[in-house]
Amino acid sequence: MPIVAVIGDGQLARMMQTSAIELGQSLRVLAGAPDSSAAQVAADVVLGDYTNIDDLRVAIEGADVMTFDHEHVPNEHLHQLIAEGVNVQPRPEALVNAQDKLVMRKRLRELGAPVPPFAAIESVEDAVGFFEAVDGQVCLKARRGGYDGKGVWFPADVAELQSLVAELLDGGTPLMAEKKVALNRELSAMVARTPSGETKAWPVVESVQKNGVCAEAIAPAPELSAELQESTRGLAQKIATELGVTGVLAVELFETLDQNSQPEIFVNELAMRPHNTGHWTQDGCVTSQFEQHLRAVLDYPLGATDTLADYTVMANVLGADTDPEMPMATRMVEVWRKYPDAKIHLYGKGHRPGRKIGHVNMVGSDLEKTRTEALACAYFLVNARWD
Amino acid sequence: MPIVAVIGDGQLARMMQTSAIELGQSLRVLAGAPDSSAAQVAADVVLGDYTNIDDLRVAIEGADVMTFDHEHVPNEHLHQLIAEGVNVQPRPEALVNAQDKLVMRKRLRELGAPVPPFAAIESVEDAVGFFEAVDGQVCLKARRGGYDGKGVWFPADVAELQSLVAELLDGGTPLMAEKKVALNRELSAMVARTPSGETKAWPVVESVQKNGVCAEAIAPAPELSAELQESTRGLAQKIATELGVTGVLAVELFETLDQNSQPEIFVNELAMRPHNTGHWTQDGCVTSQFEQHLRAVLDYPLGATDTLADYTVMANVLGADTDPEMPMATRMVEVWRKYPDAKIHLYGKGHRPGRKIGHVNMVGSDLEKTRTEALACAYFLVNARWD
Repeated sequence: MPIVAVIGDGQLARMMQTSAIELGQSLRVLAGAPDSSAAQVAADVVLGDYTNIDDLRVAIEGADVMTFDHEHVPNEHLHQLIAEGVNVQPRPEALVNAQDKLVMRKRLRELGAPVPPFAAIESVEDAVGFFEAVDGQVCLKARRGGYDGKGVWFPADVAELQSLVAELLDGGTPLMAEKKVALNRELSAMVARTPSGETKAWPVVESVQKNGVCAEAIAPAPELSAELQESTRGLAQKIATELGVTGVLAVELFETLDQNSQPEIFVNELAMRPHNTGHWTQDGCVTSQFEQHLRAVLDYPLGATDTLADYTVMANVLGADTDPEMPMATRMVEVWRKYPDAKIHLYGKGHRPGRKIGHVNMVGSDLEKTRTEALACAYFLVNARWD
Repeated sequence: MPIVAVIGDGQLARMMQTSAIELGQSLRVLAGAPDSSAAQVAADVVLGDYTNIDDLRVAIEGADVMTFDHEHVPNEHLHQLIAEGVNVQPRPEALVNAQDKLVMRKRLRELGAPVPPFAAIESVEDAVGFFEAVDGQVCLKARRGGYDGKGVWFPADVAELQSLVAELLDGGTPLMAEKKVALNRELSAMVARTPSGETKAWPVVESVQKNGVCAEAIAPAPELSAELQESTRGLAQKIATELGVTGVLAVELFETLDQNSQPEIFVNELAMRPHNTGHWTQDGCVTSQFEQHLRAVLDYPLGATDTLADYTVMANVLGADTDPEMPMATRMVEVWRKYPDAKIHLYGKGHRPGRKIGHVNMVGSDLEKTRTEALACAYFLVNARWD
């Protein structure tokens, strides 16, 4: 059986291991620490630093393909490894679009994909010019490294924008700006693509954010017209194909309402790996995103993405401000006592306020009931109380 | 998080690891070899011999509970470990009913559970007497150690029975005999029970045997009346409770037709662990038997056993007479190319004729289509051709 080497030791690599086992494989994990989320559960762990090319070389020794659970491996290393004959999936030419927000937006605009107005910000003057062009509706972003609401700013006025930009450029942070959209809600379109070019999309989901962090995903997105479901899936497949993505691609989307109150879609971010908004597929879909990612990077045929229930709701288990005294195992017991159908997934991570330490999936045909219950379970797991 | 120590290194322990990971745990495995099915995929492996009590002691060091993927640990060791304070689940008092076919039948008869007429066979005279009592319809069984059709004989006449019994008793094999039933089909009723006494049953399935080995499981059993479904689930729950089983219990059943052509049920065998006829739950049920086994032995509340599809068919991948040249990964590719919804599970085992090396699950609403496709996939995986 093939060996897939995953660079990264977080929960995404951990859940790839679950899928790998059932496919008859066992993951090779390049981990920063032996007690990291993925290293805890894999037999074949290489300890090392993903920014060190020699550690990467050790990790892929004898492996069939190298893939990632994050986008932070330096692309120059990937180019070098490819030159040495390593099968890297996805390729750095695709990955750069998940690493650099400006590169991605330029590319998507070229493709005709809907993105809000944007500009490179290389000086305070650029920022002021963009501020005027969009009537002050500015969202300032670090081009690289931001996630979960980090690296994103909404300056209240031009003075705040000017000082922010001066400070950030001074500190060496490359910037871009985008027109703030009148957000109706966030959606996510996930798709997988193989090196041979096969693509398969899951249903588009609604993603509910709290404080910039995904709190919930509802599959499929409620009250999304069949037409918009279809066109948005098509958009994700087109992006995957045009950018040459391999493995799983998450297209994070804004839904706004146009002047006729009709929903409109804009691309927000791309992620080229399994994604938080795809965790629902573990319990609500024929093929989970983790199995699909492995199949895709190995250039195997992709699995069916049919759903197994009317609705699947995923609620993130996010560390509370303080960790309750009740042991986690007891919290799980309490949750299951009340909801025997709650699918609890934990990442083997310790407490930290706001930290993603797990998620709960729940399937059902009554959307409001399913949502309420999934959220209640996730809440209990970090608060040890129901309200 | 708790540590579950599993004694045994086969595919059942391997698939428990899959479930353990998602529950935030990681299994401790007592394995006979580092390349065994379960040891390949677990981070915490103790190499040792499950018949050696010192190895068992090493394996349970620091674990919360000890459980099994087979029934072959000597019960005297289990009694000793319990005396030393180890939390063994299931208990040897329950396990003996899965180890000794005569003990089990006596106990079930006491409980009023339906079993075919049977007798202890301690001499050739016992055998002849039983032969006459059941009009020659004799099935001779080794009391211990038989599985997958091994340890079961159907003598054609009294002379063959006599010589078989003489030879086996001579060789030190304790025996029993049972009246051969006019088998209509085989069923399996699976249930889980916690030490606190909660039980939860899955739908009763039909189990199709080939050469004494399970080839296929169909969930739920087709054309089983709602009444018989219910009473059979109740029977399995009663057996689990009365025998004090903890973890998963499989009740293998014979279905015969009475003189009015009405189906009747008899218990055939018991297994106290996840079971081949429960593999369908991985893809067709809210809670898989592997997750349920872990929850049960940890005395957690049990998970919902609702199905996710009208039908789920499990087809075993059984080693062909010769191993085709096509690599297994290529065979998987061919299967998925044709059936993107085939859920392939492989155990990391090499080829041997008849060996269980994996299974394929398929869900659907058209039973015949689902069966045909699941069987075709399993066939291709070992024959590298469709017919």
